[in-house]
This record gives sequence, C-alpha cells and structure tokens, in this order.
Amino acid sequence: MSSQHYRRIVSHLRAAIDSGQLQTGDELPSEAELCEQFGSSRGPVRQAMGLLRTEGMISTGRGRRSTVLARSSGGCFDASLSLTNWLRDVGRTPRQRVLRLVREPADPETAAALRLPAGEHIITLERLRLADGRPVAIERAHFPMSIGEHVLAINPDTDSVFAHLAEKRLIVDHLARRISAITADEEQARLLEVSVGTALLQVVLTAADEHATPLAHAVHLFPGADVSLDLNTVRGTPFAACLTPLG
Amino acid sequence: MSSQHYRRIVSHLRAAIDSGQLQTGDELPSEAELCEQFGSSRGPVRQAMGLLRTEGMISTGRGRRSTVLARSSGGCFDASLSLTNWLRDVGRTPRQRVLRLVREPADPETAAALRLPAGEHIITLERLRLADGRPVAIERAHFPMSIGEHVLAINPDTDSVFAHLAEKRLIVDHLARRISAITADEEQARLLEVSVGTALLQVVLTAADEHATPLAHAVHLFPGADVSLDLNTVRGTPFAACLTPLG
Repeated sequence: MSSQHYRRIVSHLRAAIDSGQLQTGDELPSEAELCEQFGSSRGPVRQAMGLLRTEGMISTGRGRRSTVLARSSGGCFDASLSLTNWLRDVGRTPRQRVLRLVREPADPETAAALRLPAGEHIITLERLRLADGRPVAIERAHFPMSIGEHVLAINPDTDSVFAHLAEKRLIVDHLARRISAITADEEQARLLEVSVGTALLQVVLTAADEHATPLAHAVHLFPGADVSLDLNTVRGTPFAACLTPLG
Repeated sequence: MSSQHYRRIVSHLRAAIDSGQLQTGDELPSEAELCEQFGSSRGPVRQAMGLLRTEGMISTGRGRRSTVLARSSGGCFDASLSLTNWLRDVGRTPRQRVLRLVREPADPETAAALRLPAGEHIITLERLRLADGRPVAIERAHFPMSIGEHVLAINPDTDSVFAHLAEKRLIVDHLARRISAITADEEQARLLEVSVGTALLQVVLTAADEHATPLAHAVHLFPGADVSLDLNTVRGTPFAACLTPLG
C-alpha cells in the first residue's frame, strides 16, 4: 500500500513538472497537502520527494517548500546510446553510411573496456551519421564476437544496431561516458564537412547489460558547434559527473 | 526503525564498493542475506538497492543478484563547482591569478541564466587557475549583486569564492552544466600556454541555492588534452545527461 502511494506521488509530480504545469522555481505542494491529496502517511511522500531530488527534478530543505529545478529526462538514456534514437527524438531523419565493418584484434584500450584479453578478435563498425542528409557524427563501435555476430546480421546502412540487439534480448542497462574535446584531423574533417582543426566533442562510451557485462565500446565525434551535452547535479546525490584527475 | 535499516544498508554497501572490497562486476549479497545480516525486512533492503541503482553504483534485476557497476562519486559535487576543491581533490596545489573583477551590465545570456532583467548590473570575476604553478583553466564567473558584494569582500587572488559564500550560508544546492568543445583563440591560448586552435572543453555552469535562485553563472575552459568529464547513467533512472537538440 505504502509503495503504491509512493509510486502514485512520484508519477503525479513528474507529470506536473514535465507538462509544464509546475515550472522551474515553482513551489511544490507541502508534505501535508500531498498526504491529504493521496490519503497517504508522511513516509511515502518523503520517499517520493527523495527520489525526485536524487533525479535532479526538485530541491528540498527543512522548514520550507520544495521547489522545481528541471524536467525529467526520461527519454535520454536511449538517445545517449543510439544516435538513431537521438536524431529521431530531436525531429531529424537519421541516415548512416558505413565506413568500415571488420573483424579485427582489439587494441589494448578497447580490450580493457570490453574486459577481453588484449588481441582478442572483435567486430568494429564505423559509420558516418547524417541528420536530414547532413553529417552530424562519426561513430566507431566495437563489439565482442558474441554481440558482433548479431551486428553482422543486420544491414548497417539502414538498421539500428541497438534496436536489433534489444530484439535479441541484449538490453543495455547502463552507460559509462567520458567526455572530452579534440580537434578534427583531415579524415574527420572531410567526413563531417568541417575545416581541419574544428573543435569536436568526443564521447567515449561503454555500454553494459544488467550483469555489468560490456556489450559495446564506442567513440562518438560531434562537431562542437552543433552538439553539446547537458547535465544537472544535486548536492548530496552521488550521481557521477566528475572532472577527471589531471594526467 | 525501517529508515534506520535503510540508511545502515546503504552505508554498508557504499563503503564495501568504495573501499574496493566489492569490485565492478562483483555480485552483491542476496536480499535474503542482507535481511539476515541487518535484522531487516525486505522493504528497507529493496529501498537501499533502489537508491544505489539510481546513483549508478549497482545494477539490479529480477531473479538474479545485483552487481557492482561503479564507485560512488560523493566528493565530486563540490569539485564540479569549485576549481579550488577539484584541484585539492586530485592532489594538486591550487593557485589563481585574477584577470578581471568588474561591476558591469549583464549580457542577455548571463541575465537569463541568473534570472535577472537584461542590463542589470552584476559582478564578473575572471581568473586563470593554476595547478602546481601550471595553467589548467580559465574561469569567468558572473554573480548577481547580492552575491557579488560577498565576492568583492574576499581576496580573489587567494580565496575560494564558494567557500566564502558557504560561510555566509549561501550554499549551492544544484548545478546545471552544458558541456561543449571549442578551440582556443589567441587570448585563451596565451593564458593557458597552449597553441592557438587547441581543443578546449567548455563547461557552462549555473549554480543555484535550494530555492532554485541562481547564485552564479560561470564558464570554465580546460585544455582538452588535460581534462575530461566522466559520467555514468543507468536505464530507468532519469538523471539528466542528454545530447542537445541540433541547432
């Protein structure tokens, strides 16, 4: 019963914020009001507030009303993983051109990320991603052979790798990303139709299933003028978005 | 009682993971084992697992043991906000050189971020940040006058702005960050002692208090070869770390 209350309160507040009915800076109803509205005790109300705070949607504090910080970002997990999904989400028509699809020995960094012995064979798929016909990203993805065999079964010029893997019940559960800035070399500049030396946002990503087994290790390169990455962080919630130590 | 159990279980698991006693890919004790160990019912155990999952530390799933994904990142909130804290955390000696400290009208973007009328006066503090004497970042921070008067009261060549604000009970509760890549212009290159055109990681940050009132809006620029940003995301937890729509 109390966990039902908790879920109903979370859904209600999330919907109110996502629909814009409650906006950034607006106050939420008080705990007492939410208790009355949902016929609930304080526990589930506080638990619901705690979750929304951890998610960066609201701020809470002693002796004052909670306030709205930001909308939820429900859809962006898949958009972070799959450039096809991201482009659809932002209303663009995704297309792709295969640059390279090979079976090859993993270099040490890739092997480490996929938790394979160095030199083990993997499948590498390199594609130019286009939005409405214009280049927006270079994607180089590496897969262990057990995943790679599914990748080899699709048409990489038209199909989404992760949609196909999901059909095979290979579901990405979590992503680790490292974000940095580089400049375009001649090859990258030619593909992305930018000048040599243009700033690129580089996202190095490892995707793993719920057992923490790596399914893919990928590098995405975006022209810095087109794409950025947004994140919210709330004090007291140890969600990771940290500057790296200096080399 | 049950919330005490919850907190004790969270602390225990966090400590086991952060100390390396449990490593990435390791299985956690089962729910039944944790119930026995803590003399607890299932509720607090599940609640503790739920929190650690939201935080990206563990993955959970039906009919299987939870596995460890990553250590917590407890300390990185303050390190994201304050470059002084970040440099201390990574074992470097922070130093700084003030480039500019002025009262000036806010440009439209800064005014919007601070939720002030355009043209309203603000305090702008620009500093070169050094680690062990070497330049690592250019920081340009804008403050509303009510905050700026505290900034004007410190020695900006030696003191941490956010440490001073915290003493005045002006506590940053949450951060919104936008990460992108740019190239160094002549001025930035000279300050950071890199070549013109070097890739820079640009972090545009808005820091707000628990009432969602903006305390500062800042731009941090890091040479791309030195600094990157790490983040973990778990499916089903709507923590925000999204690629922006294409312009």
